[in-house]
Amino acid sequence: MRTLILSAEDVAAAVRHVGLNALMDEVIAALHAACDDQHGNETYDVPKREGFSYDNPAVGLLEWMPLLKRDVEAFIKLVGYHPNNPWKRGLPTVLSSLLKFDTTNGHLRVVADGTLATAIRTGAASAVASRILARPDSSTLGLIGAGAQAVTQLHALSRLFPIREVYVCDIDERVAQSFARRVETLRLDDVRFHVCAANEVAGAADILCTATSVAVGGGPVFEDGALLPSVHINAVGSDFPGKTELPRSLLDRALVCPDYLPQAAREGECQALPPEQLGPDLMQLVRGCGQYAANQTRTTVFDSTGFALEDYVVLGVLERIAAEIGLGLEVEMESRSDPHDPYAGLAGSPAAPLRIGVDLKEAVAAGGLQRPGKNR
Amino acid sequence: MRTLILSAEDVAAAVRHVGLNALMDEVIAALHAACDDQHGNETYDVPKREGFSYDNPAVGLLEWMPLLKRDVEAFIKLVGYHPNNPWKRGLPTVLSSLLKFDTTNGHLRVVADGTLATAIRTGAASAVASRILARPDSSTLGLIGAGAQAVTQLHALSRLFPIREVYVCDIDERVAQSFARRVETLRLDDVRFHVCAANEVAGAADILCTATSVAVGGGPVFEDGALLPSVHINAVGSDFPGKTELPRSLLDRALVCPDYLPQAAREGECQALPPEQLGPDLMQLVRGCGQYAANQTRTTVFDSTGFALEDYVVLGVLERIAAEIGLGLEVEMESRSDPHDPYAGLAGSPAAPLRIGVDLKEAVAAGGLQRPGKNR
Repeated sequence: MRTLILSAEDVAAAVRHVGLNALMDEVIAALHAACDDQHGNETYDVPKREGFSYDNPAVGLLEWMPLLKRDVEAFIKLVGYHPNNPWKRGLPTVLSSLLKFDTTNGHLRVVADGTLATAIRTGAASAVASRILARPDSSTLGLIGAGAQAVTQLHALSRLFPIREVYVCDIDERVAQSFARRVETLRLDDVRFHVCAANEVAGAADILCTATSVAVGGGPVFEDGALLPSVHINAVGSDFPGKTELPRSLLDRALVCPDYLPQAAREGECQALPPEQLGPDLMQLVRGCGQYAANQTRTTVFDSTGFALEDYVVLGVLERIAAEIGLGLEVEMESRSDPHDPYAGLAGSPAAPLRIGVDLKEAVAAGGLQRPGKNR
Repeated sequence: MRTLILSAEDVAAAVRHVGLNALMDEVIAALHAACDDQHGNETYDVPKREGFSYDNPAVGLLEWMPLLKRDVEAFIKLVGYHPNNPWKRGLPTVLSSLLKFDTTNGHLRVVADGTLATAIRTGAASAVASRILARPDSSTLGLIGAGAQAVTQLHALSRLFPIREVYVCDIDERVAQSFARRVETLRLDDVRFHVCAANEVAGAADILCTATSVAVGGGPVFEDGALLPSVHINAVGSDFPGKTELPRSLLDRALVCPDYLPQAAREGECQALPPEQLGPDLMQLVRGCGQYAANQTRTTVFDSTGFALEDYVVLGVLERIAAEIGLGLEVEMESRSDPHDPYAGLAGSPAAPLRIGVDLKEAVAAGGLQRPGKNR
C-alpha cells in the first residue's frame, strides 16, 4: 500500500504554490473550524504528549503526540526539542514528523516533515485565541523572544489585526536586531520595528507574545508593571514542568486560557495556578466565542503549549495542496502479502530463488549463536 | 537531513540477500545480546505501549511503542492491529512502521516497514526464551493457531532445536491444513506435519506455541490435562487486557516468565497471576541463563506480549544489511533551514519569487475567515 512522503522541500513547494498568507489563512480557518466542532471532545481523542528527556549525547526531548479523530483516522506527531541545535549544529530547535494512519486497516498513509508545520500552527493557534481575546484594533505587537516562533506569531497576528508597531527583544541581541530582516518575506511594509528591553516591549503591547527558551525556574521573562489593562498575551514558550514565562501577579488577575488543559496544567503557565482559577480551553473559547469576547477589555492569557490537534489540522491542509498539485513521493511501504504467511513476499523469481542462508552450524562456529544446552 | 526509507520490498531484498535463516539467526543472537547487556534496564528506557482502541470504521487498535537507548538513539514502533484485515481486506492483521531518531538533534534517521520485522522478532523472542527454558532435545513442536505468527515460531525454534514433528491446529481448518505448504520456504525436509485438535496438539508438544486471535474472555485455547511435565510454552497471542490463552491451573504450577513485566502484567498471561507468582523477565532470564536452565525439567511459560526492544533489535539488523548493499531510499526529509527563520527555505529563485498569496480580504469575502470583532 502506498504511503505519501512529504519532505521539507515538498512542504515548501506546497507553500510556494498557495502563497504564505493564503496558507496561514487556511490554517487559521481550519483550526478555528476544528475547535468549533459541535461534538468537540467526542470527536477527538488527544492523549497528553509523553516523551524521553535526556542530557546525552545532547540536552534534548523526544516526544510523541497522538490524536484519534474518531471514526475517521489517527495521527501522531513525533517531535524533537534540542535547544542547542541552532548554535551548535545550525539546525532548528524543533524538528518533527507528522504521520497519519488509516483506522480501517492500520495503513500508514502519510509521513510529512513537520518543521514548518509546527511553526505555522503555533502562530495560527495564537491567532485563533487572539481573535477572541484581544481588542480588534490591536496595532502594537510585543515579541519577547525573537527566534523562529516570533516570525510566525507576527505573521499569523498580522493576518487578523492591523499591526503597525512591533516591539521586539531577545536575550541574544543579534537575534533581536535581525528580526526585521527575517520577516521581510512577509512584506509588512507599513510596520515599524523597535528593538528594546523586555519590560518596554511588554509595556507597549496591545498583544504580547512570549516565545523564549527560558530555563526551568528562570522565569518570568518580564516584570509585571506598566502593562496595558487590556493586553492579550500569547505565552508560547512554556513547554516543560517548571518552565514558565509570565509573572504570577499577572496570571492572578488575568483570564488564563489553556490550549489543552491536561498538558498546560503540567507544562504551561497553568501549572502556576489552581484549577479553579483557569479559564476555558481553546475549544471552549472558540465554541463560546461570543460570550468570551467580553474579556477583550481585560488582561487575558492564551497558554499555548502546542497540542496535536493543531498539527493534525496543518497536515490536512498540506495533504489537500499536495493532492491538488501532485506533490510528494508515493512509496509502496507495506506489502500486500499473504496475511497468513509473513514470508510469502520474499521468494524471488525462479531465476533468483530464495536463499535460505548459512546453516546454523556456521553461525555457531562463528560464535554468534549457541545451541541450547550450552548455557553456562 | 537524509532519512532512510525502507519499504516492504527493501526489507524483502535485505532478507533475500542474507537468506532467511541467516537473518533469523542474526536476530536471535542480537536479541540475546541486547538482553544480556550488563547495564540492562539502565541502558534502555521502554515505556509501556499505549494506543487507541476503536470499533469504527473497523475494529482495531493503533499503538505506539517507544524505546530510548540511553546516550545512543531513540526508537518508536507504530503498530496497527486489525483482526478483520485478513478475511475482509486481504491484509495482514498487524501492520507497523519502525522509526529511529538521532538523540543528538532529533533528526528522523529511518522509517522502515515493520510487518516482516514484527513476525521475525516474535519468533526470535520465543527462541531466546526457549533456549533457556525448554529441553535442548525438544523435537516435537505444537502450534495452536496456525497463522502468520506460527510460521515464524516454527522457523525460529527450528534454528535451535532438532524439530521433527509439528502438531498444528487452528479454528479455521483451512489455515491449519495450509500450514505445511506455507512453511515450504523453510525447507524443513525432515519435519512431519500433523493437523489435529487443540488438546492433542498440547499433549504431544515438547514446546508449545499459542498464537491465536482468541477473543477477550474466550480463553483458554486448550484444556489443562495430558501435557508433558517438562513442556515449555510460548504464549504469543495475549496482547490485550482480558485476552489470555492458557489455563489458570497450568499457570499456577509453571514458572511464568514475562517478556516485559509492565506490559505482560496488563495484557499478557501474567494478568491472571499475583505479582509474587511471576518468574524472571526476558532480560533477567538471559542474564541468569545458567541459573534458570534448571527449569528445563518443569513446566515453563514465556509470556510474549511483544515489546519495543525486540523490534529495535530487528531494525538494527535491517539497517546493517541495507547499508552493506545500499538498500532503501534516502529522502531529504528535514531542511537545514535558518534556525531563526522558519520561512527561510521558502523563497524561490528570483525568477519565481515567493507569492504571498491572496489578501485576507479575499479570504474573508470567501467566508473562510473573519476579522476579530465580528464574533457573534
